[in-house]
Amino acid sequence: MLESELMHLLSSAGFQTPRFKHIALESPIEIDFYPIALKIESSKIIHKSDVGGVEISLADTSQAEAARQQILNHIAKHNIMLDSQDGFIATAMIQGEELFAGVVNDPIFGQIILFGKGGVLLELYRDVCYIDIHADEAEILRALRTTKISKLFEGFRGTTPMMGEIVEFIKNLQNFIKTNPTIRECDLNPVIFNAKGLHVVDARIDYHANTQNPASTVRIRPNFFENRNVAVIGASNDPNKVGYAIAHNALSFSGKLYLVNSKGGTFEGHRLYCSLDEIEDTIDTAVITIPSSHVIETIETLIPKGAKNIIIVSAGFKEVGDTRSEERLSELARQHNLNIIGPNCLGYYESTRSLNLTFGSSSIKKGSLALIAQSGAVLSSLMDKATQEGIGFSHILSAGNMADMGFADIITMLTDDPECEAVSLYAEGIQEGKAFLEALRRCTKPIRVYKAGKSPQARKAAFSHTGNLSGDYPMFRGLLESVGVKMVDSIEALLYAQNFENIAVITNAGGPGTIITDVIIERGSKLYTLSDSDLQALDAILPSNWSRNNPIDIIGDARSERFEAALRCVDQIDDVDLIYLLITPQMMTDTLNIVQLLDQPWNKPVFPILLGGAMMSEALLFLRKHSKPCFTTLHEAGAFL
Amino acid sequence: MLESELMHLLSSAGFQTPRFKHIALESPIEIDFYPIALKIESSKIIHKSDVGGVEISLADTSQAEAARQQILNHIAKHNIMLDSQDGFIATAMIQGEELFAGVVNDPIFGQIILFGKGGVLLELYRDVCYIDIHADEAEILRALRTTKISKLFEGFRGTTPMMGEIVEFIKNLQNFIKTNPTIRECDLNPVIFNAKGLHVVDARIDYHANTQNPASTVRIRPNFFENRNVAVIGASNDPNKVGYAIAHNALSFSGKLYLVNSKGGTFEGHRLYCSLDEIEDTIDTAVITIPSSHVIETIETLIPKGAKNIIIVSAGFKEVGDTRSEERLSELARQHNLNIIGPNCLGYYESTRSLNLTFGSSSIKKGSLALIAQSGAVLSSLMDKATQEGIGFSHILSAGNMADMGFADIITMLTDDPECEAVSLYAEGIQEGKAFLEALRRCTKPIRVYKAGKSPQARKAAFSHTGNLSGDYPMFRGLLESVGVKMVDSIEALLYAQNFENIAVITNAGGPGTIITDVIIERGSKLYTLSDSDLQALDAILPSNWSRNNPIDIIGDARSERFEAALRCVDQIDDVDLIYLLITPQMMTDTLNIVQLLDQPWNKPVFPILLGGAMMSEALLFLRKHSKPCFTTLHEAGAFL
Repeated sequence: MLESELMHLLSSAGFQTPRFKHIALESPIEIDFYPIALKIESSKIIHKSDVGGVEISLADTSQAEAARQQILNHIAKHNIMLDSQDGFIATAMIQGEELFAGVVNDPIFGQIILFGKGGVLLELYRDVCYIDIHADEAEILRALRTTKISKLFEGFRGTTPMMGEIVEFIKNLQNFIKTNPTIRECDLNPVIFNAKGLHVVDARIDYHANTQNPASTVRIRPNFFENRNVAVIGASNDPNKVGYAIAHNALSFSGKLYLVNSKGGTFEGHRLYCSLDEIEDTIDTAVITIPSSHVIETIETLIPKGAKNIIIVSAGFKEVGDTRSEERLSELARQHNLNIIGPNCLGYYESTRSLNLTFGSSSIKKGSLALIAQSGAVLSSLMDKATQEGIGFSHILSAGNMADMGFADIITMLTDDPECEAVSLYAEGIQEGKAFLEALRRCTKPIRVYKAGKSPQARKAAFSHTGNLSGDYPMFRGLLESVGVKMVDSIEALLYAQNFENIAVITNAGGPGTIITDVIIERGSKLYTLSDSDLQALDAILPSNWSRNNPIDIIGDARSERFEAALRCVDQIDDVDLIYLLITPQMMTDTLNIVQLLDQPWNKPVFPILLGGAMMSEALLFLRKHSKPCFTTLHEAGAFL
Repeated sequence: MLESELMHLLSSAGFQTPRFKHIALESPIEIDFYPIALKIESSKIIHKSDVGGVEISLADTSQAEAARQQILNHIAKHNIMLDSQDGFIATAMIQGEELFAGVVNDPIFGQIILFGKGGVLLELYRDVCYIDIHADEAEILRALRTTKISKLFEGFRGTTPMMGEIVEFIKNLQNFIKTNPTIRECDLNPVIFNAKGLHVVDARIDYHANTQNPASTVRIRPNFFENRNVAVIGASNDPNKVGYAIAHNALSFSGKLYLVNSKGGTFEGHRLYCSLDEIEDTIDTAVITIPSSHVIETIETLIPKGAKNIIIVSAGFKEVGDTRSEERLSELARQHNLNIIGPNCLGYYESTRSLNLTFGSSSIKKGSLALIAQSGAVLSSLMDKATQEGIGFSHILSAGNMADMGFADIITMLTDDPECEAVSLYAEGIQEGKAFLEALRRCTKPIRVYKAGKSPQARKAAFSHTGNLSGDYPMFRGLLESVGVKMVDSIEALLYAQNFENIAVITNAGGPGTIITDVIIERGSKLYTLSDSDLQALDAILPSNWSRNNPIDIIGDARSERFEAALRCVDQIDDVDLIYLLITPQMMTDTLNIVQLLDQPWNKPVFPILLGGAMMSEALLFLRKHSKPCFTTLHEAGAFL
């Protein structure tokens, strides 16, 4: 498409474009909007700059005529013969900040808008944001505000705020893409920002080579969380086998449980059925831990028994190269409208009926957090940590290879479940990005996500060419943040669903108080500001040289009595969300007595930070034994904020 | 100074400036270097832009004449009467990237150059670096390369590399400042970068109001590390007193030790001298823990006894507002050439003669790391952690209020001491920045620094407890990095002096292996690439489905035998600097047996990471009991890299 045609297209789609004029090859240049850029327009020339076909900042007719001659000389050197079909385009030069807008077709997320600082600084600063073409205004704003350049739009140094214009531009671009389904990707580059708004100065559009597949229709799945009759297929008496751990953990189920093993016999006093045929009841849910070669036939037997939910713990599918069997699993799920979790996973837990079908921890505490993970080892580590710190779950879901149920399906189902109040997700890679975003959008519960695989080598390779920003961590993070997800920087942060805004620190040392202040601010939380009445209350119980500020430094000689008095006081302050008890080993510090305070009931969450090592070990053991959270470094303490 | 005079000054100082011409108020504009900017020049007008005195991008005489009339109209509106003294300056417009160069007069570091991206993006991206006016070429380059904009200078997208020109510009600016000692601060803004180098387009210079004080002369101090006769003043039998802990810790000293307490008697079988007069020997070094009101008279008594080194543990000086006593301490130090550490500190340790004059840990292991800290609590926490992890020290120095010896003095002394092979420093605020930089420059040992007080809130907290200015963090970090210091992001990283470049990970799980890869890359270290012979060696001992890549995933069913075989193999690889043993709680994992491997001698440092909680506690206890380092989160494990 010639540049003048492209400009017409963009202009009629509602984008501001610079004034331009087509000039025939031999006609004199008659323009009344200097300064201009002059460019060759010819279907024989794709990359104008490469053949010297562009001259910019031309101030008047004589400069323009000289530039025309220059361009013709350059082209002649490249042995390109022009004819009457060819000509020039003269474009008004527009002053302003150079931005970039583009639509990439990401293999994971589909068509996604990139917007931010353009020109040579695009690659240097990577100050861009990612916006789904289906994003609404709130998402667009959230995304834009992650860029530094957006401060320019908010009215910087007294300029008029133009955020509204920027949002309209993005909406217009979304609309342009949606109403032109043949467009695959496009670059609007540069887009010039000035007091008159955004001006698309140059553009490139790529069209689809073939017609697109229609979007996959969403399946109405059976509810995963209605489990009355459950079967463990592969229950085993050999304690080294996964089937042992699952059967053992499953015994706490308050519904009907059937244990199946082809050898029959008993398991901890319960009958082992030799086959599914022996079970007369229907089966809602089955967990399968038998060798992979028997999994598909087992599912085929389960279907006539009414099974809807199947958790395949067995490994030996896609991850060892057997894509055929894995495809057969998805096929079965589609044909019979099954919910299949896995294969190659750690299992499933739900709190309602104490259903623990995992081979992880056997003592899972009931709670309101749903934890989903794509790595069994990450999940088992987090479950083990949760046991130690007394953290409970509503659901635990090991996603495994995701032959059928992906994150989108799982989150959609959790969205409607009243037991689950918050969702945490550990992801490595995802497939259907658009469905995932849509599921996250619809879920109004707080969601935290940790994404593994940030490798800068991959990022660098992806960024070296702007069309290939796709598939990288910044896009994943940007899109998820735009739909309101909290991206966390450590897996341990997945265990904490609550966001703490206003924090109080009680400490026996000033230096560590300074450091935790930095950590809290860096994480985007705030230190609660003590009011006059707080100060009075603390003055009454603390020595005169206390810090009179938060962090509340109660001085190095503080013993448990003083810690308790300060804690009792701060625990009464309405606006405090979280209290850190920051204890350093000083001469008088009776650390064990201090942490024993945590056995009392407090209004606020109180998290102890035990800084040091050997001198803290007794107190640490106490907290571990009593399933209390505890941190041993300041950065670890801040990581979940 | 008029702009034309300023441009003459800069031009004669070797800076490229744009062509310009002075035009008298009434003369016609005759210029042969269009496009130009036209600006009013008048001693009556300081801020030209504010009165509409600047017009830019003028393409020819008619535009210039029109602009002149515009400017005169604007000025007339501001009721400024121009006369024959006044005129215009016409300056050639220069195209290119807008940069900023400036010299600020920092209260801590003195005159420092700021250089980086300019214009409106200066505030948005803060992509600037900090260069001491005494920095040499290596420092300048190190600083420049911390900016993203420097990629433009290195030859970006095929442009000619111009780093040499940039360095020359900085050197020229250093020279300009040094040869014009009346200049206090200056802004060269904007500086335009293009293929012809850097062009100073506008500038502002501030001069000193008064003549400067001459730089303070450097004192030749006695060597702190020659301690033969040591006195503990304030030794006490009351175990709740600091004087008890110090006297107790000091008993391990292999030189002559004198314990002083006005009440006399004995301390753990050693004589307590009632006063210094009773001691006939000379005293090299004294530690003082008596109430602050008696400290100065005690020092006055120590001077005739030959004391050179005085460590004042006693608090109650500047930090509680008593600046007069604190000034008296500095005065005494200067008059009698004493080395005074403190006041308000935790004490001093040196390994050579087992001299522990701290009231921190009593069992300090000998090592080669000198640890200096401005907070006693941070120091005691780190000492306690070091005890737990078996880390040793050559020196430990609690700086306290730094009435006399500052970081510069301490580092200078450590520079020449053969026992110390690396230095770690925890800093909150510093005083003489230039001397500090010079000391760091001269010290060729690896130096790590953690700086507290990054946020304004934390700076406030730091000031309230040491009374020292904390300063601007980016400047502190930038300058220290330019002299080769490694800035670390956690206090625990101060315990690790060695830099690990090439890391191997042995793990029983893929997911956590991916995460630790991200962590290692983020910290700027590398994962060692397995060679063909490494692969062969590992193939011979591992199951066929191991990862054949580093992280070396030895599969979830790995027990201690397989961990040992893999470790034995990787420990032989020359280029590996560090091995992480990443253990997750899986069904077969015999974690205790695995960590017991660490009791064997290995060629490389082997750091276990125990991911999880309750199931890891036995192994964790084993490692603690055997004074081995151990990490329980992946981010903690990477924090010291």
